Amino acid sequence: MGRLNKISARLEKAPFDGLLISSPANISYLLGFTARDAYLLLSKRTAVYFTDSRYSEEARQPLRGLASLRQITGQAFKDIADTCASLKLKRVAFEERCLPFARYKLLKTELRRANKGALIPSYGLIEESRMVKEPEEIEHIRKALKITLKALDFIRGFIRPGITELDLAGELERFIRQAGGRGPAFDIIVAFGPNSSRPHHLTGSRKLKKNEPALIDLGVDYNGYKSDLTRVFFLGKMSVTAKRIYDTVRRAQENAIERIQPAVEAGSIDAAARQYITQKGYGGFFGHNTGHGVGLEIHEEPKISRGSKTRIKPGMVFTVEPGIYLPGKFGIRLEEMVLTTEKGCEVISGALNK
Amino acid sequence: MGRLNKISARLEKAPFDGLLISSPANISYLLGFTARDAYLLLSKRTAVYFTDSRYSEEARQPLRGLASLRQITGQAFKDIADTCASLKLKRVAFEERCLPFARYKLLKTELRRANKGALIPSYGLIEESRMVKEPEEIEHIRKALKITLKALDFIRGFIRPGITELDLAGELERFIRQAGGRGPAFDIIVAFGPNSSRPHHLTGSRKLKKNEPALIDLGVDYNGYKSDLTRVFFLGKMSVTAKRIYDTVRRAQENAIERIQPAVEAGSIDAAARQYITQKGYGGFFGHNTGHGVGLEIHEEPKISRGSKTRIKPGMVFTVEPGIYLPGKFGIRLEEMVLTTEKGCEVISGALNK
Repeated sequence: MGRLNKISARLEKAPFDGLLISSPANISYLLGFTARDAYLLLSKRTAVYFTDSRYSEEARQPLRGLASLRQITGQAFKDIADTCASLKLKRVAFEERCLPFARYKLLKTELRRANKGALIPSYGLIEESRMVKEPEEIEHIRKALKITLKALDFIRGFIRPGITELDLAGELERFIRQAGGRGPAFDIIVAFGPNSSRPHHLTGSRKLKKNEPALIDLGVDYNGYKSDLTRVFFLGKMSVTAKRIYDTVRRAQENAIERIQPAVEAGSIDAAARQYITQKGYGGFFGHNTGHGVGLEIHEEPKISRGSKTRIKPGMVFTVEPGIYLPGKFGIRLEEMVLTTEKGCEVISGALNK
Repeated sequence: MGRLNKISARLEKAPFDGLLISSPANISYLLGFTARDAYLLLSKRTAVYFTDSRYSEEARQPLRGLASLRQITGQAFKDIADTCASLKLKRVAFEERCLPFARYKLLKTELRRANKGALIPSYGLIEESRMVKEPEEIEHIRKALKITLKALDFIRGFIRPGITELDLAGELERFIRQAGGRGPAFDIIVAFGPNSSRPHHLTGSRKLKKNEPALIDLGVDYNGYKSDLTRVFFLGKMSVTAKRIYDTVRRAQENAIERIQPAVEAGSIDAAARQYITQKGYGGFFGHNTGHGVGLEIHEEPKISRGSKTRIKPGMVFTVEPGIYLPGKFGIRLEEMVLTTEKGCEVISGALNK
């Protein structure tokens, strides 16, 4: 398969003989199926997939022609180290952002025992490839978005004063599954009134009142690919302040989106939103990043963050989601998803003014 | 609060001055609220909670009287190291099973810069305390179980040939929320027919046929506490083989449950189930552990696994879930939850013969 070969080819120039992949998203990306509690060992010529008896039967079929299957019986790292020894891999890289320290220690000990091998921290080889989406991946993301937009449309007919945050989340969840999604991409955030001033509010039992904002942050998993959108609804009237904040966030978002094109730095997209919000006097109330990549993971590269030097490329998919949060009062976050094109970007989450 | 003081007191005898906690479940356990992307720094006398602007407003109120709040603005470990320096903590322990290698490296560098401090791997201080549940925790688990059992009852009236795995999972999910659960404790496993031979099958679009098993592995999150149960339904007739396997698994489970009492080793509970299954000729078809602790996490200590020397104590809550999986044919796993008492155990997931 293309992806696996592409990464194996890059190992030719790498300062190690083998790469042990433990990130579930990276393994899914390379093998095309969801992998839990598994490891994938790549060398220039071989791929070996390690999993235990709970998952091995499920893996047999999709692994065909891609990687050989080794069923772990006891301690995974013992089997992995023995395999490294038999493949004569002396310098083995591991994913340092994904492997807990305790596992690093175990693996190091086992590699030394089996092969007098060295363990080398690494990051980014596969993530870099994942940043630029293939047409097939974009299709999956578009389908996830389609279901998300339908769910938000559906909820317009459902939202009313008196409904609780959890009720609304439950209805959204059910709708997503019925519409063909695997499920929500993350715990749905429904935040009414002052709860909306907490960017990652834990959906609870608050009932919606008239004239207060209802913030919904919702993602869908379609075939492993994710979407991520935030909308704020008002039932009744918006206060003058709310209107001003809403317009400020929207304008900041538009500024950021206008900035997107190949070769610009991710940090400059963040700056476009942040500067506008700061200029309007709300700089202290926008604490998080302007956006993040979305794909097999809900948060992935590129980060649209302060000072990021990552160069934007065609095929990158990420969120643009500035927000202003007034503690104890309310918060407005507006989140769209964009696909970078050759000339600029497409807002793939529907019309901006919806 | 009791738990925080208990752990701080144990630091008196520890070979370090401070403990940096990064496990969300451990932080929730100590502070009593759900914490994401946060760190808790404990010394013998102080507790400092680090979080970023997305979560800080939400944390302010529940932290009162427990820990001081420090809002992270840039790199978390820089703030943490500076705090360690100002508290004069020279030897700081971290949770080695929870911190990725890359973060360990960062933290080590920052501590050296700020304080010439040393970083010490640790595990188990809080996990050991969490193994034995307090009455309040047991109440939450019982409530999670009550909703789980209700959901399984509800589904009896719903399950019928032609329904898909995903439909069933969707209905269960919705029921759980309506019944007051925060949501499922993990991705619900619904496995029909041959899919049931995969212990962790990914719920999909297969339709249920008559006379085939429907395996449902379901957990509920109630107030942060989890439940975990597996049931196998047959619509129509069970084959002679299916009946034999079912009875073997049930008997193995009963043997394991009979073995449970304070002071026995967890490994001997595993052995009680495993030996019976092996004796019946199915030893090669039961690859996973017999059980695991359940609480704030769906999988926690104690592990009921081969050779485990962990001594069972009153107040421990764990699953007993032997299984036999015949690849390509079907699988039977039966999972109950028990609470260890002074004399033996209580099966808190309802009558065994349900």
